[in-house]
Amino acid sequence: MIQKGLLVVLSGPSGAGKGTVCKAMLPAMPEMGYSISCTTRQPRQGEVEGVNYFFKTREQFEQMIRNDELLEWAEVYGNYYGTPLRYVEEQLSEGRNVLLEIDIQGALQVKKKYPNGVFIFLIPPSLEELKKRILGRGSETEESFKLRFGSAAEEMNYINEYDYVVVNDKVEQAVDRIRSIIYAELCSVKRNREYYNKLIQEGTKHAVSFD
Amino acid sequence: MIQKGLLVVLSGPSGAGKGTVCKAMLPAMPEMGYSISCTTRQPRQGEVEGVNYFFKTREQFEQMIRNDELLEWAEVYGNYYGTPLRYVEEQLSEGRNVLLEIDIQGALQVKKKYPNGVFIFLIPPSLEELKKRILGRGSETEESFKLRFGSAAEEMNYINEYDYVVVNDKVEQAVDRIRSIIYAELCSVKRNREYYNKLIQEGTKHAVSFD
Repeated sequence: MIQKGLLVVLSGPSGAGKGTVCKAMLPAMPEMGYSISCTTRQPRQGEVEGVNYFFKTREQFEQMIRNDELLEWAEVYGNYYGTPLRYVEEQLSEGRNVLLEIDIQGALQVKKKYPNGVFIFLIPPSLEELKKRILGRGSETEESFKLRFGSAAEEMNYINEYDYVVVNDKVEQAVDRIRSIIYAELCSVKRNREYYNKLIQEGTKHAVSFD
Repeated sequence: MIQKGLLVVLSGPSGAGKGTVCKAMLPAMPEMGYSISCTTRQPRQGEVEGVNYFFKTREQFEQMIRNDELLEWAEVYGNYYGTPLRYVEEQLSEGRNVLLEIDIQGALQVKKKYPNGVFIFLIPPSLEELKKRILGRGSETEESFKLRFGSAAEEMNYINEYDYVVVNDKVEQAVDRIRSIIYAELCSVKRNREYYNKLIQEGTKHAVSFD
């Protein structure tokens, strides 16, 4: 029913739990394409090359920028993050839906290129919870924590740039909401107008030639 | 997060399976309000007063019309169908979501009064399947079948008046799609703008007063 894949962008403030939710999406919707970002930041404990990220040097990343190989990229807290363009384009042209998990700067860039994408803003249930989560990572200095928490609170301002907001209270519930949003968008009349107009023509033909 | 309930209208051509799907929604989403229509048509086998419909005489129904007690009403194949207004208004004002299962004429009336409602068009997987379903009811004469089938095919034209289309191939899948649409709408930024703007103000306050 869908002519082309749906581009779903999962974004939101730092510490909302984008990575955790995205990882939990995979078993819930294995038929989707999951874009893997490139980054120059150091791997956190347990992160695997080609699964969580493609880890790059600054030189490699800057080469990718020059070669136009990135759908979006940003420098966040001194590290580069970016989305390889080719995977996304291939999946979408084959009619497969693709999920991107990216920060807000990146999402705004993607929105310019894919205004028909589905933009989901993941938020923590409260600022208190956000504080706990950022500290829980154990990878923050006092300085970097203050920077990250302050930004996260300010980043809430970007809600209005998005189509949907999902509160990440429980991961499985957030996953269910995102899955719901994807199914709903796939059922939306505005996304399928061409297909339905064909169906209407057939319907009318049948109705006329009924006897 | 929602200030007021969501009005969900499940509609579509005759024979799409609206009644069956609506009945299956109840255990899937017991927290919703399910509006029960009034009708002057004869009960089909197994239909129960106050569960499937409130069965009325033509005199009773016409009295309800005169008293403005109906949100919408229509005469379809010689029978009146209508939605009692009070139940819907009460549920919505209490912040409860309400599902209406109504024909296309009725849905278009509701859309004028509740343009913010969610309008779902349920369709059979094919015209062949539609034919089988209408005949399967066993309540049709040849004449009424031709009338119903011809109308159903023409009714497909109304797709563009709706927000979503759900193909009723398997009932449980149709229910899952409708549930997804409801959850997605509840997460939509446009429906929660007021709430989020409040959240943003708080967020900014916290960010400023962080140290």
